[in-house]
Amino acid sequence: MRGNLKNRKTNNNPIGIFDSGFGGLTVMSEINKILPLESLIYFGDTAHIPYGTKSKGAVIKFSKEIASFLVKNRVKLIVIACNTASAFALSILKKTFDVPIIGVIESGAEASVLASKSKNIGVIGTEGTVNSNSYINEINKISKSNVYQQACPLFVPLVEEGWISGKIADAVVKKYMAPLLKKHIDTLVLGCTHYPLLKGILRKNVDKKIVFIDSAKTVAREVVKVLRQKSLLANKNGNKFLKFYVSDNPEKFQKIGNNFFWRKINNVRKVDMEQR
Amino acid sequence: MRGNLKNRKTNNNPIGIFDSGFGGLTVMSEINKILPLESLIYFGDTAHIPYGTKSKGAVIKFSKEIASFLVKNRVKLIVIACNTASAFALSILKKTFDVPIIGVIESGAEASVLASKSKNIGVIGTEGTVNSNSYINEINKISKSNVYQQACPLFVPLVEEGWISGKIADAVVKKYMAPLLKKHIDTLVLGCTHYPLLKGILRKNVDKKIVFIDSAKTVAREVVKVLRQKSLLANKNGNKFLKFYVSDNPEKFQKIGNNFFWRKINNVRKVDMEQR
Repeated sequence: MRGNLKNRKTNNNPIGIFDSGFGGLTVMSEINKILPLESLIYFGDTAHIPYGTKSKGAVIKFSKEIASFLVKNRVKLIVIACNTASAFALSILKKTFDVPIIGVIESGAEASVLASKSKNIGVIGTEGTVNSNSYINEINKISKSNVYQQACPLFVPLVEEGWISGKIADAVVKKYMAPLLKKHIDTLVLGCTHYPLLKGILRKNVDKKIVFIDSAKTVAREVVKVLRQKSLLANKNGNKFLKFYVSDNPEKFQKIGNNFFWRKINNVRKVDMEQR
Repeated sequence: MRGNLKNRKTNNNPIGIFDSGFGGLTVMSEINKILPLESLIYFGDTAHIPYGTKSKGAVIKFSKEIASFLVKNRVKLIVIACNTASAFALSILKKTFDVPIIGVIESGAEASVLASKSKNIGVIGTEGTVNSNSYINEINKISKSNVYQQACPLFVPLVEEGWISGKIADAVVKKYMAPLLKKHIDTLVLGCTHYPLLKGILRKNVDKKIVFIDSAKTVAREVVKVLRQKSLLANKNGNKFLKFYVSDNPEKFQKIGNNFFWRKINNVRKVDMEQR
Protein backbone atom coordinates (compact mmCIF):
# COMPACT_ATOMS: atom_id res chain seq x y z
CA MET A 1 0.00 0.00 0.00
CA ARG A 2 2.73 2.39 1.01
CA GLY A 3 4.53 1.70 -2.27
CA ASN A 4 1.34 2.30 -4.16
CA LEU A 5 0.69 5.58 -2.43
CA LYS A 6 4.25 6.69 -3.14
CA ASN A 7 3.90 5.65 -6.72
CA ARG A 8 0.63 7.49 -7.13
CA LYS A 9 2.25 10.57 -5.69
CA THR A 10 5.16 10.44 -8.15
CA ASN A 11 2.74 9.97 -11.05
CA ASN A 12 1.15 13.30 -10.32
CA ASN A 13 4.44 15.12 -9.90
CA PRO A 14 5.05 17.71 -12.61
CA ILE A 15 7.06 17.47 -15.82
CA GLY A 16 9.86 20.07 -16.01
CA ILE A 17 10.48 21.84 -19.32
CA PHE A 18 13.23 24.34 -20.00
CA ASP A 19 14.51 26.59 -22.74
CA SER A 20 16.66 29.70 -23.07
CA GLY A 21 13.51 31.78 -23.42
CA PHE A 22 10.04 31.63 -24.93
CA GLY A 23 10.51 29.13 -27.74
CA GLY A 24 10.07 26.06 -25.53
CA LEU A 25 6.50 27.14 -24.88
CA THR A 26 5.67 25.55 -28.26
CA VAL A 27 6.86 22.27 -26.72
CA MET A 28 4.93 22.85 -23.49
CA SER A 29 1.85 23.61 -25.54
CA GLU A 30 2.12 20.29 -27.46
CA ILE A 31 2.69 18.29 -24.27
CA ASN A 32 -0.32 19.92 -22.65
CA LYS A 33 -2.42 19.11 -25.72
CA ILE A 34 -1.66 15.38 -25.78
CA LEU A 35 -1.23 14.92 -22.02
CA PRO A 36 -3.90 17.18 -20.51
CA LEU A 37 -3.65 15.63 -17.03
CA GLU A 38 0.03 16.42 -16.55
CA SER A 39 1.23 19.29 -14.36
CA LEU A 40 3.95 21.29 -16.08
CA ILE A 41 6.72 23.56 -14.80
CA TYR A 42 8.41 25.77 -17.37
CA PHE A 43 11.75 27.51 -16.91
CA GLY A 44 12.87 30.16 -19.42
CA ASP A 45 16.48 31.27 -18.93
CA THR A 46 15.80 34.81 -20.09
CA ALA A 47 18.92 36.18 -18.32
CA HIS A 48 21.06 34.23 -20.79
CA ILE A 49 18.85 34.19 -23.88
CA PRO A 50 19.80 33.31 -26.60
CA TYR A 51 21.78 30.07 -26.11
CA GLY A 52 22.32 29.73 -29.86
CA THR A 53 25.34 32.04 -29.85
CA LYS A 54 26.88 30.92 -26.52
CA SER A 55 29.72 28.42 -25.98
CA LYS A 56 29.27 24.77 -25.07
CA GLY A 57 30.71 25.33 -21.59
CA ALA A 58 28.34 28.16 -20.81
CA VAL A 59 25.26 26.28 -22.05
CA ILE A 60 26.19 23.21 -19.96
CA LYS A 61 26.56 25.38 -16.85
CA PHE A 62 23.19 27.12 -17.36
CA SER A 63 21.47 23.79 -18.10
CA LYS A 64 22.82 22.11 -14.95
CA GLU A 65 21.60 24.99 -12.77
CA ILE A 66 18.12 24.84 -14.28
CA ALA A 67 17.89 21.04 -14.00
CA SER A 68 18.84 21.31 -10.28
CA PHE A 69 16.08 23.86 -9.79
CA LEU A 70 13.53 21.60 -11.51
CA VAL A 71 14.61 18.53 -9.53
CA LYS A 72 14.22 20.54 -6.31
CA ASN A 73 10.69 21.23 -7.51
CA ARG A 74 10.10 17.45 -7.63
CA VAL A 75 9.74 16.95 -11.38
CA LYS A 76 9.38 13.33 -12.54
CA LEU A 77 10.87 13.99 -15.99
CA ILE A 78 12.79 16.82 -17.67
CA VAL A 79 12.34 17.99 -21.26
CA ILE A 80 15.13 20.10 -22.73
CA ALA A 81 12.92 22.16 -25.02
CA CYS A 82 15.86 23.91 -26.64
CA ASN A 83 17.93 22.55 -29.47
CA THR A 84 21.17 24.22 -28.42
CA ALA A 85 20.91 22.92 -24.84
CA SER A 86 19.96 19.46 -26.13
CA ALA A 87 22.99 19.48 -28.41
CA PHE A 88 25.44 20.56 -25.73
CA ALA A 89 24.05 19.34 -22.39
CA LEU A 90 21.76 16.28 -22.80
CA SER A 91 24.38 13.58 -22.18
CA ILE A 92 25.87 15.42 -19.18
CA LEU A 93 22.47 16.07 -17.59
CA LYS A 94 21.57 12.39 -18.04
CA LYS A 95 24.72 11.44 -16.10
CA THR A 96 24.14 14.07 -13.40
CA PHE A 97 20.44 13.66 -12.56
CA ASP A 98 18.28 10.69 -11.61
CA VAL A 99 15.06 11.59 -13.45
CA PRO A 100 14.53 10.67 -17.11
CA ILE A 101 15.67 13.49 -19.44
CA ILE A 102 14.50 13.99 -23.01
CA GLY A 103 16.08 16.34 -25.54
CA VAL A 104 14.50 17.67 -28.70
CA ILE A 105 17.25 16.45 -31.01
CA GLU A 106 16.99 12.65 -30.66
CA SER A 107 13.25 12.59 -31.31
CA GLY A 108 13.55 15.06 -34.21
CA ALA A 109 16.33 12.98 -35.74
CA GLU A 110 14.24 9.80 -35.46
CA ALA A 111 11.19 11.43 -37.03
CA SER A 112 13.26 12.83 -39.91
CA VAL A 113 14.69 9.41 -40.75
CA LEU A 114 11.17 7.92 -40.76
CA ALA A 115 9.93 10.71 -43.05
CA SER A 116 12.76 10.88 -45.58
CA LYS A 117 12.73 8.65 -48.64
CA SER A 118 15.63 10.23 -50.53
CA LYS A 119 17.84 10.34 -47.42
CA ASN A 120 18.57 13.97 -48.19
CA ILE A 121 17.59 15.73 -44.97
CA GLY A 122 17.80 19.47 -44.29
CA VAL A 123 18.26 20.87 -40.80
CA ILE A 124 17.75 24.53 -39.85
CA GLY A 125 18.73 25.84 -36.42
CA THR A 126 20.76 28.35 -34.45
CA GLU A 127 24.53 28.69 -34.83
CA GLY A 128 25.08 26.60 -31.69
CA THR A 129 22.90 23.71 -32.85
CA VAL A 130 24.41 23.70 -36.33
CA ASN A 131 28.02 23.94 -35.15
CA SER A 132 27.47 21.09 -32.68
CA ASN A 133 26.65 18.74 -35.62
CA SER A 134 24.23 16.96 -33.25
CA TYR A 135 21.53 16.33 -35.87
CA ILE A 136 24.10 14.91 -38.28
CA ASN A 137 25.38 12.55 -35.60
CA GLU A 138 21.95 11.47 -34.31
CA ILE A 139 20.49 10.93 -37.77
CA ASN A 140 23.48 8.87 -38.89
CA LYS A 141 23.29 6.73 -35.76
CA ILE A 142 19.85 5.60 -36.97
CA SER A 143 20.39 5.49 -40.72
CA LYS A 144 23.16 6.74 -42.98
CA SER A 145 21.85 9.93 -44.62
CA ASN A 146 22.99 13.12 -46.30
CA VAL A 147 22.29 15.86 -43.79
CA TYR A 148 22.55 19.48 -44.95
CA GLN A 149 22.54 22.15 -42.26
CA GLN A 150 21.80 25.88 -42.33
CA ALA A 151 22.12 28.30 -39.40
CA CYS A 152 19.37 30.97 -39.53
CA PRO A 153 20.27 33.70 -37.00
CA LEU A 154 17.57 36.09 -38.27
CA PHE A 155 14.67 33.69 -37.71
CA VAL A 156 14.43 34.19 -33.93
CA PRO A 157 14.28 38.00 -34.07
CA LEU A 158 11.80 37.77 -36.99
CA VAL A 159 9.50 35.63 -34.84
CA GLU A 160 9.93 37.91 -31.83
CA GLU A 161 9.09 40.97 -33.98
CA GLY A 162 5.98 39.11 -35.19
CA TRP A 163 7.20 39.46 -38.82
CA ILE A 164 6.21 35.91 -39.73
CA SER A 165 4.79 36.82 -43.12
CA GLY A 166 5.38 39.57 -45.71
CA LYS A 167 8.22 40.74 -47.91
CA ILE A 168 11.03 40.70 -45.36
CA ALA A 169 10.21 37.26 -43.96
CA ASP A 170 9.90 35.96 -47.55
CA ALA A 171 13.33 37.31 -48.53
CA VAL A 172 15.04 35.98 -45.40
CA VAL A 173 13.42 32.55 -45.78
CA LYS A 174 14.42 32.40 -49.48
CA LYS A 175 18.01 33.32 -48.66
CA TYR A 176 18.39 30.69 -45.93
CA MET A 177 16.53 27.97 -47.84
CA ALA A 178 18.36 28.36 -51.19
CA PRO A 179 21.43 26.24 -50.31
CA LEU A 180 19.24 23.46 -48.86
CA LEU A 181 16.86 23.38 -51.84
CA LYS A 182 19.84 22.96 -54.17
CA LYS A 183 20.54 19.68 -52.34
CA HIS A 184 17.05 18.31 -53.17
CA ILE A 185 16.06 17.64 -49.56
CA ASP A 186 12.71 15.89 -49.06
CA THR A 187 12.59 16.48 -45.28
CA LEU A 188 13.31 19.63 -43.26
CA VAL A 189 13.94 19.53 -39.52
CA LEU A 190 12.80 22.76 -37.81
CA GLY A 191 15.68 22.56 -35.34
CA CYS A 192 14.75 25.47 -33.07
CA THR A 193 11.65 25.85 -30.95
CA HIS A 194 10.90 29.28 -32.45
CA TYR A 195 10.67 27.91 -35.98
CA PRO A 196 7.24 26.23 -35.87
CA LEU A 197 5.85 29.78 -35.90
CA LEU A 198 7.47 30.22 -39.34
CA LYS A 199 5.85 27.09 -40.82
CA GLY A 200 3.47 29.13 -42.98
CA ILE A 201 6.14 31.24 -44.65
CA LEU A 202 8.49 28.25 -44.97
CA ARG A 203 5.76 26.22 -46.66
CA LYS A 204 5.16 29.07 -49.10
CA ASN A 205 8.82 29.14 -50.13
CA VAL A 206 9.73 25.47 -50.52
CA ASP A 207 8.45 22.53 -52.58
CA LYS A 208 5.09 21.30 -51.24
CA LYS A 209 6.42 17.76 -51.01
CA ILE A 210 9.09 18.57 -48.40
CA VAL A 211 8.04 17.16 -45.01
CA PHE A 212 8.56 19.47 -42.01
CA ILE A 213 9.71 17.89 -38.76
CA ASP A 214 8.39 19.99 -35.90
CA SER A 215 10.44 19.18 -32.81
CA ALA A 216 7.64 20.37 -30.50
CA LYS A 217 5.38 17.61 -31.79
CA THR A 218 8.01 14.86 -31.91
CA VAL A 219 9.31 15.53 -28.41
CA ALA A 220 5.76 15.55 -26.98
CA ARG A 221 5.20 12.08 -28.44
CA GLU A 222 8.51 10.96 -26.90
CA VAL A 223 7.34 12.19 -23.49
CA VAL A 224 4.20 10.02 -23.75
CA LYS A 225 6.35 7.02 -24.70
CA VAL A 226 8.78 7.41 -21.79
CA LEU A 227 6.10 8.09 -19.16
CA ARG A 228 4.12 5.08 -20.37
CA GLN A 229 7.21 2.82 -20.28
CA LYS A 230 7.96 3.91 -16.73
CA SER A 231 4.29 3.81 -15.63
CA LEU A 232 4.58 7.46 -14.67
CA LEU A 233 1.57 8.97 -16.47
CA ALA A 234 -0.53 11.31 -14.30
CA ASN A 235 -3.98 10.22 -13.20
CA LYS A 236 -7.19 12.07 -12.48
CA ASN A 237 -6.43 12.32 -8.75
CA GLY A 238 -3.75 14.94 -9.32
CA ASN A 239 -4.29 18.68 -9.03
CA LYS A 240 -3.06 19.69 -12.44
CA PHE A 241 -1.10 22.95 -12.49
CA LEU A 242 1.02 25.01 -14.87
CA LYS A 243 3.90 27.08 -13.50
CA PHE A 244 6.24 29.49 -15.23
CA TYR A 245 9.68 30.61 -14.01
CA VAL A 246 12.23 32.85 -15.69
CA SER A 247 15.67 34.17 -14.75
CA ASP A 248 14.91 37.71 -15.95
CA ASN A 249 12.10 39.96 -17.18
CA PRO A 250 8.89 38.13 -16.17
CA GLU A 251 6.73 40.93 -17.64
CA LYS A 252 8.24 40.55 -21.10
CA PHE A 253 7.94 36.76 -20.89
CA GLN A 254 4.27 37.09 -20.10
CA LYS A 255 3.75 39.40 -23.09
CA ILE A 256 5.75 37.58 -25.79
CA GLY A 257 4.95 34.14 -24.34
CA ASN A 258 1.31 34.50 -25.28
CA ASN A 259 2.24 34.20 -28.98
CA PHE A 260 3.76 30.80 -28.30
CA PHE A 261 1.10 29.41 -26.05
CA TRP A 262 -2.52 28.43 -26.37
CA ARG A 263 -3.74 30.50 -23.45
CA LYS A 264 -2.86 33.65 -21.54
CA ILE A 265 0.20 33.20 -19.34
CA ASN A 266 -0.08 34.49 -15.79
CA ASN A 267 2.00 34.54 -12.66
CA VAL A 268 5.45 34.27 -14.18
CA ARG A 269 7.93 34.17 -11.31
CA LYS A 270 11.56 35.30 -11.41
CA VAL A 271 14.29 33.07 -9.97
CA ASP A 272 17.76 34.51 -9.40
CA MET A 273 20.03 31.82 -10.79
CA GLU A 274 23.09 32.82 -8.80
CA GLN A 275 21.27 32.98 -5.47
CA ARG A 276 19.77 29.54 -5.57
CA MET B 1 58.38 64.61 -6.99
CA ARG B 2 56.58 61.68 -5.48
CA GLY B 3 53.26 63.23 -6.53
CA ASN B 4 54.59 63.76 -9.99
CA LEU B 5 55.74 60.18 -10.28
CA LYS B 6 52.41 58.92 -9.03
CA ASN B 7 50.65 61.17 -11.45
CA ARG B 8 52.72 60.05 -14.35
CA LYS B 9 51.94 56.45 -13.50
CA THR B 10 48.18 57.07 -13.46
CA ASN B 11 48.37 58.90 -16.78
CA ASN B 12 49.64 55.78 -18.47
CA ASN B 13 47.09 53.51 -16.85
CA PRO B 14 44.62 52.05 -19.35
CA ILE B 15 41.13 53.19 -20.27
CA GLY B 16 38.49 50.50 -19.68
CA ILE B 17 35.75 50.01 -22.26
CA PHE B 18 32.85 47.58 -21.98
CA ASP B 19 29.89 46.36 -23.97
CA SER B 20 27.60 43.34 -24.04
CA GLY B 21 29.57 41.98 -26.98
CA PHE B 22 31.40 43.14 -30.08
CA GLY B 23 29.64 46.42 -30.84
CA GLY B 24 31.72 48.46 -28.42
CA LEU B 25 34.77 47.74 -30.55
CA THR B 26 33.55 50.55 -32.83
CA VAL B 27 34.01 52.84 -29.81
CA MET B 28 37.41 51.37 -28.95
CA SER B 29 38.46 51.85 -32.55
CA GLU B 30 37.52 55.55 -32.50
CA ILE B 31 39.28 56.14 -29.16
CA ASN B 32 42.38 54.44 -30.48
CA LYS B 33 42.26 56.61 -33.60
CA ILE B 34 42.13 59.96 -31.81
CA LEU B 35 44.16 58.92 -28.72
CA PRO B 36 46.86 56.66 -30.14
CA LEU B 37 49.01 56.77 -26.96
CA GLU B 38 46.31 55.37 -24.67
CA SER B 39 46.35 51.76 -23.47
CA LEU B 40 42.89 50.20 -23.76
CA ILE B 41 41.21 47.26 -22.02
CA TYR B 42 38.03 45.96 -23.62
CA PHE B 43 35.48 43.74 -21.89
CA GLY B 44 32.73 42.07 -23.97
CA ASP B 45 30.05 40.40 -21.80
CA THR B 46 29.40 37.66 -24.35
CA ALA B 47 27.86 35.32 -21.73
CA HIS B 48 24.96 37.77 -21.42
CA ILE B 49 24.80 39.22 -24.93
CA PRO B 50 22.50 40.91 -25.91
CA TYR B 51 21.70 43.46 -23.19
CA GLY B 52 19.01 45.05 -25.37
CA THR B 53 16.36 42.53 -24.36
CA LYS B 54 17.36 42.13 -20.68
CA SER B 55 15.78 43.84 -17.66
CA LYS B 56 17.16 46.93 -15.93
CA GLY B 57 18.11 44.94 -12.81
CA ALA B 58 20.05 42.36 -14.78
CA VAL B 59 21.95 44.96 -16.82
CA ILE B 60 22.90 46.88 -13.64
CA LYS B 61 24.21 43.67 -12.05
CA PHE B 62 26.30 42.72 -15.10
CA SER B 63 27.65 46.30 -15.44
CA LYS B 64 28.73 46.50 -11.79
CA GLU B 65 30.62 43.21 -12.07
CA ILE B 66 32.44 44.37 -15.19
CA ALA B 67 33.29 47.78 -13.73
CA SER B 68 34.78 46.04 -10.65
CA PHE B 69 36.90 43.88 -12.94
CA LEU B 70 38.14 46.93 -14.85
CA VAL B 71 38.91 48.88 -11.65
CA LYS B 72 40.93 45.90 -10.37
CA ASN B 73 42.84 46.17 -13.64
CA ARG B 74 43.74 49.78 -12.68
CA VAL B 75 41.81 51.68 -15.35
CA LYS B 76 41.88 55.48 -15.05
CA LEU B 77 38.51 55.94 -16.79
CA ILE B 78 35.63 53.70 -17.86
CA VAL B 79 33.62 54.02 -21.07
CA ILE B 80 30.26 52.26 -21.18
CA ALA B 81 30.33 51.50 -24.89
CA CYS B 82 26.80 50.10 -24.88
CA ASN B 83 23.63 52.14 -25.10
CA THR B 84 21.52 49.77 -23.01
CA ALA B 85 24.08 49.67 -20.19
CA SER B 86 24.51 53.45 -20.38
CA ALA B 87 20.74 53.88 -20.15
CA PHE B 88 20.33 51.58 -17.17
CA ALA B 89 23.60 51.64 -15.24
CA LEU B 90 25.54 54.91 -15.78
CA SER B 91 24.23 56.81 -12.74
CA ILE B 92 24.66 53.82 -10.42
CA LEU B 93 28.20 53.08 -11.63
CA LYS B 94 29.11 56.77 -11.12
CA LYS B 95 27.96 56.49 -7.48
CA THR B 96 29.72 53.14 -6.91
CA PHE B 97 33.17 53.69 -8.43
CA ASP B 98 35.83 56.36 -7.98
CA VAL B 99 37.10 56.66 -11.57
CA PRO B 100 35.38 58.91 -14.11
CA ILE B 101 32.73 57.03 -16.09
CA ILE B 102 31.40 58.04 -19.50
CA GLY B 103 28.31 56.61 -21.18
CA VAL B 104 27.44 56.78 -24.86
CA ILE B 105 24.05 58.39 -24.35
CA GLU B 106 24.98 61.77 -22.84
CA SER B 107 27.49 62.57 -25.56
CA GLY B 108 25.17 61.34 -28.32
CA ALA B 109 22.33 63.46 -26.94
CA GLU B 110 24.56 66.54 -26.84
CA ALA B 111 25.76 66.02 -30.40
CA SER B 112 22.20 65.54 -31.67
CA VAL B 113 21.04 68.81 -30.12
CA LEU B 114 23.97 70.64 -31.72
CA ALA B 115 23.17 69.09 -35.12
CA SER B 116 19.40 69.50 -35.22
CA LYS B 117 17.86 72.70 -36.56
CA SER B 118 14.23 71.57 -36.70
CA LYS B 119 14.38 70.02 -33.21
CA ASN B 120 12.87 66.84 -34.67
CA ILE B 121 15.36 64.17 -33.66
CA GLY B 122 15.12 60.46 -34.45
CA VAL B 123 16.71 57.80 -32.23
CA ILE B 124 17.21 54.16 -33.22
CA GLY B 125 18.35 51.56 -30.71
CA THR B 126 17.62 48.25 -29.01
CA GLU B 127 14.40 47.58 -27.13
CA GLY B 128 16.17 48.25 -23.81
CA THR B 129 17.54 51.63 -24.88
CA VAL B 130 14.24 52.75 -26.40
CA ASN B 131 12.11 51.59 -23.46
CA SER B 132 14.41 53.38 -21.02
CA ASN B 133 13.60 56.74 -22.71
CA SER B 134 17.14 57.82 -21.87
CA TYR B 135 17.76 59.71 -25.10
CA ILE B 136 14.47 61.58 -24.71
CA ASN B 137 15.41 62.58 -21.16
CA GLU B 138 19.02 63.54 -21.95
CA ILE B 139 18.12 65.53 -25.07
CA ASN B 140 15.37 67.44 -23.27
CA LYS B 141 17.73 68.28 -20.39
CA ILE B 142 19.83 70.22 -22.94
CA SER B 143 17.12 71.63 -25.19
CA LYS B 144 13.42 70.97 -25.53
CA SER B 145 13.01 68.81 -28.67
CA ASN B 146 10.67 66.34 -30.34
CA VAL B 147 12.39 63.00 -30.02
CA TYR B 148 11.01 60.06 -32.01
CA GLN B 149 12.30 56.61 -31.13
CA GLN B 150 12.35 53.31 -32.99
CA ALA B 151 13.56 49.96 -31.64
CA CYS B 152 15.28 47.91 -34.39
CA PRO B 153 15.77 44.33 -33.08
CA LEU B 154 16.78 42.98 -36.50
CA PHE B 155 19.72 45.36 -36.99
CA VAL B 156 22.13 43.53 -34.66
CA PRO B 157 21.65 40.08 -36.27
CA LEU B 158 21.86 41.71 -39.74
CA VAL B 159 25.24 43.19 -38.84
CA GLU B 160 26.44 39.92 -37.31
CA GLU B 161 25.38 38.00 -40.45
CA GLY B 162 27.31 40.58 -42.50
CA TRP B 163 24.11 41.43 -44.44
CA ILE B 164 24.79 45.16 -44.38
CA SER B 165 23.70 45.77 -47.96
CA GLY B 166 21.32 44.11 -50.41
CA LYS B 167 17.59 43.48 -50.67
CA ILE B 168 16.95 42.22 -47.15
CA ALA B 169 18.90 44.97 -45.41
CA ASP B 170 17.13 47.52 -47.64
CA ALA B 171 13.68 46.19 -46.74
CA VAL B 172 14.41 46.04 -43.01
CA VAL B 173 15.90 49.56 -42.99
CA LYS B 174 12.89 50.93 -44.93
CA LYS B 175 10.45 49.30 -42.50
CA TYR B 176 12.16 50.66 -39.38
CA MET B 177 12.81 54.10 -40.87
CA ALA B 178 9.30 54.75 -42.24
CA PRO B 179 7.70 55.97 -38.97
CA LEU B 180 10.67 58.28 -38.25
CA LEU B 181 10.73 59.77 -41.75
CA LYS B 182 7.05 60.64 -41.43
CA LYS B 183 8.04 62.86 -38.50
CA HIS B 184 10.45 64.89 -40.70
CA ILE B 185 13.48 64.32 -38.51
CA ASP B 186 16.65 66.19 -39.53
CA THR B 187 18.97 64.24 -37.19
CA LEU B 188 19.23 60.51 -36.51
CA VAL B 189 21.05 59.14 -33.47
CA LEU B 190 22.56 55.69 -34.15
CA GLY B 191 21.83 54.59 -30.61
CA CYS B 192 23.55 51.19 -30.65
CA THR B 193 27.22 50.46 -31.20
CA HIS B 194 26.43 47.96 -33.98
CA TYR B 195 24.65 50.55 -36.09
CA PRO B 196 27.61 52.53 -37.47
CA LEU B 197 28.21 49.45 -39.64
CA LEU B 198 24.80 50.09 -41.24
CA LYS B 199 25.58 53.73 -42.10
CA GLY B 200 25.85 52.97 -45.84
CA ILE B 201 22.46 51.29 -46.15
CA LEU B 202 20.83 53.85 -43.84
CA ARG B 203 22.19 56.72 -45.93
CA LYS B 204 20.80 55.06 -49.08
CA ASN B 205 17.30 54.91 -47.59
CA VAL B 206 16.85 58.32 -45.94
CA ASP B 207 16.99 61.94 -47.07
CA LYS B 208 20.58 63.02 -47.73
CA LYS B 209 20.14 66.02 -45.43
CA ILE B 210 19.55 63.96 -42.30
CA VAL B 211 22.60 64.14 -40.03
CA PHE B 212 23.73 60.84 -38.47
CA ILE B 213 25.02 60.94 -34.90
CA ASP B 214 27.52 58.11 -34.48
CA SER B 215 27.92 57.45 -30.76
CA ALA B 216 31.33 55.86 -31.30
CA LYS B 217 32.69 59.19 -32.56
CA THR B 218 30.90 61.40 -30.02
CA VAL B 219 31.96 59.33 -27.02
CA ALA B 220 35.59 59.24 -28.20
CA ARG B 221 35.59 63.06 -28.29
CA GLU B 222 34.09 63.08 -24.78
CA VAL B 223 36.93 60.84 -23.54
CA VAL B 224 39.50 63.35 -24.84
CA LYS B 225 37.66 66.18 -23.09
CA VAL B 226 37.48 64.43 -19.71
CA LEU B 227 41.08 63.17 -19.76
CA ARG B 228 42.30 66.65 -20.68
CA GLN B 229 40.22 68.29 -17.91
CA LYS B 230 41.67 65.87 -15.35
CA SER B 231 45.21 66.05 -16.78
CA LEU B 232 45.09 62.31 -17.28
CA LEU B 233 46.15 61.99 -20.93
CA ALA B 234 48.78 59.30 -21.56
CA ASN B 235 52.29 60.37 -22.49
CA LYS B 236 55.02 58.85 -24.61
CA ASN B 237 56.63 57.11 -21.61
CA GLY B 238 53.82 54.55 -21.37
CA ASN B 239 53.97 51.09 -22.86
CA LYS B 240 50.80 51.25 -24.88
CA PHE B 241 48.82 48.01 -24.93
CA LEU B 242 45.42 46.72 -26.09
CA LYS B 243 43.76 43.91 -24.11
CA PHE B 244 40.54 42.03 -24.80
CA TYR B 245 38.47 40.11 -22.27
CA VAL B 246 35.14 38.31 -22.72
CA SER B 247 32.85 36.29 -20.43
CA ASP B 248 32.25 33.56 -23.07
CA ASN B 249 33.39 32.32 -26.47
CA PRO B 250 36.75 34.08 -27.04
CA GLU B 251 37.18 32.33 -30.43
CA LYS B 252 33.95 33.77 -31.80
CA PHE B 253 34.80 37.21 -30.43
CA GLN B 254 38.10 37.11 -32.24
CA LYS B 255 36.40 36.17 -35.50
CA ILE B 256 33.42 38.57 -35.51
CA GLY B 257 35.38 41.28 -33.71
CA ASN B 258 37.61 41.79 -36.71
CA ASN B 259 34.65 43.30 -38.63
CA PHE B 260 34.34 45.99 -35.97
CA PHE B 261 37.99 46.77 -35.50
CA TRP B 262 40.74 48.28 -37.57
CA ARG B 263 43.19 45.46 -37.01
CA LYS B 264 43.28 41.74 -36.32
CA ILE B 265 42.27 40.91 -32.75
CA ASN B 266 44.49 38.47 -30.91
CA ASN B 267 44.76 36.98 -27.45
CA VAL B 268 41.16 37.34 -26.32
CA ARG B 269 40.99 36.04 -22.75
CA LYS B 270 37.95 34.56 -21.05
CA VAL B 271 36.97 35.69 -17.53
CA ASP B 272 34.42 33.67 -15.57
CA MET B 273 32.15 36.37 -14.15
CA GLU B 274 30.81 34.27 -11.28
CA GLN B 275 34.23 33.10 -10.13
CA ARG B 276 35.78 36.52 -9.80
